[in-house]
Amino acid sequence: MNAFATPGPALWSAQAHMPSVIGNQLVITRGEGNYIFTDDGRRLFDGTAGLWHTNIGHGRAEMAEVAAEQMRTLETYHVFGRFLNDRAVELAEKIASISPIAEPKIILNSGGSDSIDVALKLARRYWQLRGRSEKTMILSRDLAYHGLHAYGTSVAGLDFNREGYGTDSLVPETARFDTYDIEKVRQTVAEIGPHRIAALIAEPIQGTGGVIPPAPGYLEGLQQIADEHDILLILDEVITGFGRTGHWFAADRYQLHPHIVTMAKGISSGYSAVGGIIVAPEVWAPFYETGAPMYRHGTTYSGHATSAALALKNLEIIEREGLLGRVQELETVLTAELAALSSDDRIAETRVAGLLGGIQLRPEFSAEAVTDDMVAQGWIARPLRGNVIQLSPPFTTTDDELRGFVAAAVSSLDTVAASSSTPELAVAR
Amino acid sequence: MNAFATPGPALWSAQAHMPSVIGNQLVITRGEGNYIFTDDGRRLFDGTAGLWHTNIGHGRAEMAEVAAEQMRTLETYHVFGRFLNDRAVELAEKIASISPIAEPKIILNSGGSDSIDVALKLARRYWQLRGRSEKTMILSRDLAYHGLHAYGTSVAGLDFNREGYGTDSLVPETARFDTYDIEKVRQTVAEIGPHRIAALIAEPIQGTGGVIPPAPGYLEGLQQIADEHDILLILDEVITGFGRTGHWFAADRYQLHPHIVTMAKGISSGYSAVGGIIVAPEVWAPFYETGAPMYRHGTTYSGHATSAALALKNLEIIEREGLLGRVQELETVLTAELAALSSDDRIAETRVAGLLGGIQLRPEFSAEAVTDDMVAQGWIARPLRGNVIQLSPPFTTTDDELRGFVAAAVSSLDTVAASSSTPELAVAR
Repeated sequence: MNAFATPGPALWSAQAHMPSVIGNQLVITRGEGNYIFTDDGRRLFDGTAGLWHTNIGHGRAEMAEVAAEQMRTLETYHVFGRFLNDRAVELAEKIASISPIAEPKIILNSGGSDSIDVALKLARRYWQLRGRSEKTMILSRDLAYHGLHAYGTSVAGLDFNREGYGTDSLVPETARFDTYDIEKVRQTVAEIGPHRIAALIAEPIQGTGGVIPPAPGYLEGLQQIADEHDILLILDEVITGFGRTGHWFAADRYQLHPHIVTMAKGISSGYSAVGGIIVAPEVWAPFYETGAPMYRHGTTYSGHATSAALALKNLEIIEREGLLGRVQELETVLTAELAALSSDDRIAETRVAGLLGGIQLRPEFSAEAVTDDMVAQGWIARPLRGNVIQLSPPFTTTDDELRGFVAAAVSSLDTVAASSSTPELAVAR
Repeated sequence: MNAFATPGPALWSAQAHMPSVIGNQLVITRGEGNYIFTDDGRRLFDGTAGLWHTNIGHGRAEMAEVAAEQMRTLETYHVFGRFLNDRAVELAEKIASISPIAEPKIILNSGGSDSIDVALKLARRYWQLRGRSEKTMILSRDLAYHGLHAYGTSVAGLDFNREGYGTDSLVPETARFDTYDIEKVRQTVAEIGPHRIAALIAEPIQGTGGVIPPAPGYLEGLQQIADEHDILLILDEVITGFGRTGHWFAADRYQLHPHIVTMAKGISSGYSAVGGIIVAPEVWAPFYETGAPMYRHGTTYSGHATSAALALKNLEIIEREGLLGRVQELETVLTAELAALSSDDRIAETRVAGLLGGIQLRPEFSAEAVTDDMVAQGWIARPLRGNVIQLSPPFTTTDDELRGFVAAAVSSLDTVAASSSTPELAVAR
């Protein structure tokens, strides 16, 4: 073994450059509402809702009660073959009742990456079953993030997540298409040949790519291409699902009719590891007909009873507290706050859709440095690709907290600019 | 949409032929110790521990209390980048303390399929980083089951799980090797060329393939091939880890020193969706050195705080109640009970390793029919590939329950044999 600085804790963190983070780690020990607390007693506003998921806020007592009650009754029983548990059945019915797809079937699992892998597998299996054996290609958007299991890695539009494994893509039948210009997408589809394409997958609003709302007509264009060419449309709603856009699903906001929707995060607000896919009748029916083959898929915690109970309570809280409407109000506040930054010439662009906001800084000012300073000041934001500051607090955020959060970003930008080694940039505002 | 019998519930079950199971589903609503209960009041002995995971039994009150307490304090905070939560750190240290690999790093996630995908990705990333760009092949055992995300699907040794997607394997750089004969494994490795092989992956005891303990010298042979040829050895301990063999890991039982161990199921006894991998210093060190590249991987619920708290309590219960020793005692009982069936000529073979047993029936007697009858009689067993009845009850099973379970299998075999349409087979015993 070669030398390295210090091995640090046994835990190998996620998406972390370990030589840099060891000695610089923040240990969270408590959460309450829109705030989390570190082991050395610091209080931080959770301005990203963790990884875009803590939509109802942290440490909810009624979620704890549901978990305990369900676990005492039945922590879980699997849903393989003939077996079901009552909570998994109930959650699937609830999702069906708010689904953007009519008469759907629901496959449950343990998170967003799981959902991507099963959605893409199902798309390919569907076309094979239909006898369209050439339809194996999955096309995804440039800058896309679709989780990091093997299939999600293969369709990554953020190249650094796909590369480094010795081939261009772990699953080779993939390609990327333009993320802004629908005419270029049409060209790509034509070049590859629609007869070879199983599915287009798209985040309706790109998240990790830098909070990129769809260009006007773009999503409608994807829908049209799919409909015209017998290609499945898969919407990755892992971030946008369950209220982040002010609607249950972004498919509702943009009036789309996808064949498959992936979901995770907001379904439980992260209280438990749960995700799944919503499948349209066109895709599930061939597996339900008499004489149909079995769709061979499943994971141990598909339909985990306690996870399902927590998701059901989370959805009840979103309805009871009117949080979809609240997100619409917060979008208005966020839009106004970010519009007020348009005269700040250190900022290249601001973007908002629902309670998802991004502040893209000019290259001279590092989003990573700004978010580090924000954390030091008690406001958690994350740097995203493209030098963007992610703003996506819980749905329970107050107007004042949201205004304070945007103000904190500007204040930290001031600090970073002032400490810049280039004096003329430091006073550029 | 074409016609189909009845659409059934919104939930699309796992590994289920839906046209057959609808109308024939068992809804589990309660669990207590080694028993589960259906919505129509039936009590069933959980003779498979769900999917080989409910090792401490169902509905434990202290697990419920831990979940509630942790959720009130901090349901979770992610472990991306600089962020950690105290429970994830604690769980990783605990796993390191009982790991078969010295000074390991631990990547946490949400289940066995997750663990396979990250293990195989990491194996390939490791060799690329080491400059061995040709090392991309992953070899797995015939009859292997390694979960069903895209990479696990690609290395499936049960062909029906790998096939149906339009190519031989979603990730093409894979091949299978013999599951019994180590000399044949050597030949396969030589034919493919060790310089092209990133890793061998193996369940030490094959589970879904039909409860297949290793032939004498087989696992030691895999270890030797890996050591001789600069190939990583990945042990899939999703089923065997955390006590199922009477040791913390099968690697301990068989005295192996793998480079990566995958884990899930028994880590939490299924109270929460948690899994992960244990990584040897040889593999993690290159990512921890100054100037090392970042290993780009992570999932939202990596290191979920409540899941980690539940896993910690589960491991505490296993230690406090002496369940590793108890599994060793139960193995003795199971071995004796199955040995007593050697004169039954309806049975082809019985196999035991730890608290994992399989009864392989002769082809004239259907394991599926026998396990259906067992369920009707109040004993849950599962049919596995190869016409095998799976026996893998919780570690908390009593000797009498275990004897009763084996007797129930024989009794249901009698019933199935008696109702057989071939009279001479019906009295064959």
